[in-house]
Amino acid sequence: MRRIAVVTTGGDAPGMNATVRGLVRLASSKGFQVFGFRRGWEGLITSTFTPLTSRSVSGILQLGGTVLHTSRCPEFKTREGIRKAARTLTSRRVGGLVVIGGNGSFKGALELSKQTNASIVGIPASIDNDVFVTDETIGFDTAANTAVSEIDKIRDTAVSHERVFMIEVMGRERGFLALTVGLTVGAETILIPESKYQKTDIIKTIRENRIMGKRSGLIVAAEGIGDTHMLARQIQRNTKAEVRLSIIGYAQRGGSPTARSRLLASLFAEEAVELLSGAEGNRVVGLRDGVVGSISLQESCETEKELDPTLLRLAKLLAT
Amino acid sequence: MRRIAVVTTGGDAPGMNATVRGLVRLASSKGFQVFGFRRGWEGLITSTFTPLTSRSVSGILQLGGTVLHTSRCPEFKTREGIRKAARTLTSRRVGGLVVIGGNGSFKGALELSKQTNASIVGIPASIDNDVFVTDETIGFDTAANTAVSEIDKIRDTAVSHERVFMIEVMGRERGFLALTVGLTVGAETILIPESKYQKTDIIKTIRENRIMGKRSGLIVAAEGIGDTHMLARQIQRNTKAEVRLSIIGYAQRGGSPTARSRLLASLFAEEAVELLSGAEGNRVVGLRDGVVGSISLQESCETEKELDPTLLRLAKLLAT
Amino acid sequence: MRRIAVVTTGGDAPGMNATVRGLVRLASSKGFQVFGFRRGWEGLITSTFTPLTSRSVSGILQLGGTVLHTSRCPEFKTREGIRKAARTLTSRRVGGLVVIGGNGSFKGALELSKQTNASIVGIPASIDNDVFVTDETIGFDTAANTAVSEIDKIRDTAVSHERVFMIEVMGRERGFLALTVGLTVGAETILIPESKYQKTDIIKTIRENRIMGKRSGLIVAAEGIGDTHMLARQIQRNTKAEVRLSIIGYAQRGGSPTARSRLLASLFAEEAVELLSGAEGNRVVGLRDGVVGSISLQESCETEKELDPTLLRLAKLLAT
Amino acid sequence: MRRIAVVTTGGDAPGMNATVRGLVRLASSKGFQVFGFRRGWEGLITSTFTPLTSRSVSGILQLGGTVLHTSRCPEFKTREGIRKAARTLTSRRVGGLVVIGGNGSFKGALELSKQTNASIVGIPASIDNDVFVTDETIGFDTAANTAVSEIDKIRDTAVSHERVFMIEVMGRERGFLALTVGLTVGAETILIPESKYQKTDIIKTIRENRIMGKRSGLIVAAEGIGDTHMLARQIQRNTKAEVRLSIIGYAQRGGSPTARSRLLASLFAEEAVELLSGAEGNRVVGLRDGVVGSISLQESCETEKELDPTLLRLAKLLAT
Repeated sequence: MRRIAVVTTGGDAPGMNATVRGLVRLASSKGFQVFGFRRGWEGLITSTFTPLTSRSVSGILQLGGTVLHTSRCPEFKTREGIRKAARTLTSRRVGGLVVIGGNGSFKGALELSKQTNASIVGIPASIDNDVFVTDETIGFDTAANTAVSEIDKIRDTAVSHERVFMIEVMGRERGFLALTVGLTVGAETILIPESKYQKTDIIKTIRENRIMGKRSGLIVAAEGIGDTHMLARQIQRNTKAEVRLSIIGYAQRGGSPTARSRLLASLFAEEAVELLSGAEGNRVVGLRDGVVGSISLQESCETEKELDPTLLRLAKLLAT
Repeated sequence: MRRIAVVTTGGDAPGMNATVRGLVRLASSKGFQVFGFRRGWEGLITSTFTPLTSRSVSGILQLGGTVLHTSRCPEFKTREGIRKAARTLTSRRVGGLVVIGGNGSFKGALELSKQTNASIVGIPASIDNDVFVTDETIGFDTAANTAVSEIDKIRDTAVSHERVFMIEVMGRERGFLALTVGLTVGAETILIPESKYQKTDIIKTIRENRIMGKRSGLIVAAEGIGDTHMLARQIQRNTKAEVRLSIIGYAQRGGSPTARSRLLASLFAEEAVELLSGAEGNRVVGLRDGVVGSISLQESCETEKELDPTLLRLAKLLAT
Repeated sequence: MRRIAVVTTGGDAPGMNATVRGLVRLASSKGFQVFGFRRGWEGLITSTFTPLTSRSVSGILQLGGTVLHTSRCPEFKTREGIRKAARTLTSRRVGGLVVIGGNGSFKGALELSKQTNASIVGIPASIDNDVFVTDETIGFDTAANTAVSEIDKIRDTAVSHERVFMIEVMGRERGFLALTVGLTVGAETILIPESKYQKTDIIKTIRENRIMGKRSGLIVAAEGIGDTHMLARQIQRNTKAEVRLSIIGYAQRGGSPTARSRLLASLFAEEAVELLSGAEGNRVVGLRDGVVGSISLQESCETEKELDPTLLRLAKLLAT
Repeated sequence: MRRIAVVTTGGDAPGMNATVRGLVRLASSKGFQVFGFRRGWEGLITSTFTPLTSRSVSGILQLGGTVLHTSRCPEFKTREGIRKAARTLTSRRVGGLVVIGGNGSFKGALELSKQTNASIVGIPASIDNDVFVTDETIGFDTAANTAVSEIDKIRDTAVSHERVFMIEVMGRERGFLALTVGLTVGAETILIPESKYQKTDIIKTIRENRIMGKRSGLIVAAEGIGDTHMLARQIQRNTKAEVRLSIIGYAQRGGSPTARSRLLASLFAEEAVELLSGAEGNRVVGLRDGVVGSISLQESCETEKELDPTLLRLAKLLAT
């Protein structure tokens, strides 16, 4: 195997470009030729790619988004789509494929691995942090900091107007982002899909805080909990507080990656090249207990990552 | 007149604290005693205030929000509310009142001026930039930069996914913020209440750009144009583009003021103290054609500020 | 004249790329062909250039630095160098040349204008803000905000350690940047080349502040005042304060341009294209009293821009 | 033990305030009374303190610096100074003391522990990341991101002028900060005290890069390696490159803490309160292999933290 390819799939995450850069340079130093498929899985299906060299990935380390582009690709969800992708790998003599993306991307990669001899290695990059193999995905830290910076600004208004703000952050069906953000902005209440909540508890917290002299408040809600518009209205109706909703949107997906997202990008790229050098495939790299390693693609796809709910209690105590 | 007071009213804007600090220190250096009414007009009605000294306004220059707090105050919209406020000024022997806020605040101030002998001076601080007297309000530059920074991040995703993003910014009924932001992020289309637009034009622009190879796009819309959710859906339906909506919310109101917002805060505070020293009242200070000056409160309230629509055409040419 | 060229010279400034983009797109819409000389004057001497189209300037609006590059070019200071540059313009049939840079760049442009028939238009882009024609150069606002953000961070340490910090900012021989930055961070003392200062005054200010309970302090010094290392040591020796020096370096030249720097870039580019369309040359565009216009290149080069020293007194009162 | 105290000592680090807030609120919820000594060890010697309640630590989570202040305290390095501090703890009936600081602070704390019965718990907060017990100190991530953001700006100028920049970052005698920063900004060369370097290697790297067409460059140097002014001059003399030095100064110590620094602050505060609840003392909390725990104060002081030099090689490969 002397030729490998890389593809970024699913939602973009800050640090994808840093990962591509690291991968290309480390692989090149080991004698690999590297190609980049464009527009996610679509590039594999249509065999649209570009050669990548140490020089051509210059100047992308600090850029958000992905220079390889990404897209939704319904065709890749079909048997025929996956076969086309596999044929591209064969006809282009690609011995190894690095898939940079999140949980959904790895499920696609698992299906593809059943149709190809190419070694597939996944690198988790996602602002949702919902990939089993790793304590932290590339991009998660950046998204958390973007949300925290925005909420720090919103807090100015919350305090000045003595209002309660409900802030919806991303995270798809999971609450990792909301939990980290909520804890670090000092939210009195954090609402995540993994933990049932009672509207009466939220209302009670607001009322008790008012009695203790704390008239402003922050509620951080994961997008996965459902309709935040309605919830904000209900809370306003049931307290004497002015309640405003602010949805931290797509800015969370973009922006220059933080030091930590870039560091993970480099370390994960290094591990991926190690695996490909040893012709090991069908694995996903990750950070576990402070150590970079990898597990099988299948295990990563089939295991749901757990969220530590004790942090909810800690957050509540901290925001007293 | 040796005793003056200051109040922040309406929506908060970055630089209000810098203004309060400047005002207190410059007024103190002229021998004035300064008080701050709390929670906007409510503080005048309930006579809730705090003495402000050069020392007590230390460390607030760089803070967003307002340390004096602000609030909606329906009672101030009544004749009786305004009378109560006027009585507070008399009973507290306040000879001059500085009102820091936007257009709505000055309308309130105008009503109050009819019931009191105190000299009222308005300082325009608002992210909406909709105050007639001034080319630029305190806080506008900060809000514009906050929105620009966020949209720069969203552009990463727009380009990576080859999507069109519609981004709603604040500005109440006016398009000043949307126009500046749209022009400076390179939006292909800017939608503001002051200028009628045709959906067909937006759709045409997107289609033409696609033909020319530009597959991503940015539409910046003022909140004043109406329902952006529906508009985004209609555009998606009528183009082959993926269209996403992102609402830049309350973060635009907060955050540390930019150099420019702080500079205006200082210059406006200086002018306000000048006016009060000369016992001139019922005026609003502002920046016109590069020069700080003031006009009568009445003229400021009764004249609608014009927006330069030629910038829309410039923006379109720039985003070709 | 159907062919124009653009060059960025001297030190880079945030917004140069936004200016290039604006210029290319607006000129293209008027039917001009546009070229970009590379590496400043060197590109004119060596005839190194690249065609620029509306598409090729895509994605550079928000980038710091200059994609055309810039360099010091001693040869351009010689008669022969200027003649070579003029010959390049003739042989390449360049009818108009837009020079984006600061005061030094325009002096070079003035010399060049004497040897060529091409219409030369200057656009002031410089973090020093020392160009006579304009109240504000492209990039100045960005540099000011970068310095202010850093000093806001340094203030955390100044207050926590109750130290005095002297902070050196850029500006070459002029004090525009130091004055704006010093005023907007709340420096007790601002040192600029345009205003003589006494060490004893600085020392007195620190001592008086200590007596009044203000134990930390900020001194903002322009690089043009001389050796700040020695000055900081002398102040420490003569007060009981811990004095630290921090030099805000090259970061001031880079970074994504602020909304205001981008806006000026767009407006100045528009004016430059207007001039070239009317075959007017040997002018520099600028913003005066809130209006965009132009003056002759010669006048701009021969007139020193004045700095308003009354702001020093205002700054002192504000930082009491 | 129902009364505990907290003190911030040594250089300030972003997240110290978040730690104080977390500590006070979590300790209060367990029934402790909490006091804060002011100005570091000086406050223990002079018995200067302030009561801290859940309400009084409101609004400090996001602030850089330390609201308790800190200072250099030569007297605490004497036997008599330490005895005075111990007597203060006894006379004020302080059963537990939380020391927030870096390596130097813990050495002081170890000495103090020999003279007092109070349980001492250290929480590592330092931008140097040089504390043995923990993989990461509070504030390190913030400092790294501040430096990375500045260097991203400097890169604009480096690329535009095709210059080499040497950038000095903090870290005292250790290279942790320089290593993380250098790796994540893509520096071709990283100079740290833990690894000998040859000037000839730096020069060779620059020359080779020029041959390969990479004319700009970044060298990140830890302050601990010695005189960077002289080194930059020597490199310039020995290459044809323009070499500039930029020292990222005290801004690295300040600013609002990142999400990660705030998270560590919360987790370490929780662990410290756990220890004090169990009357365990003379320990330092930390994060090891992804898990929060503690080791003895003595072990932490006597063991030097190792730095992983393989990252230097990775950085070099990544910046090819």
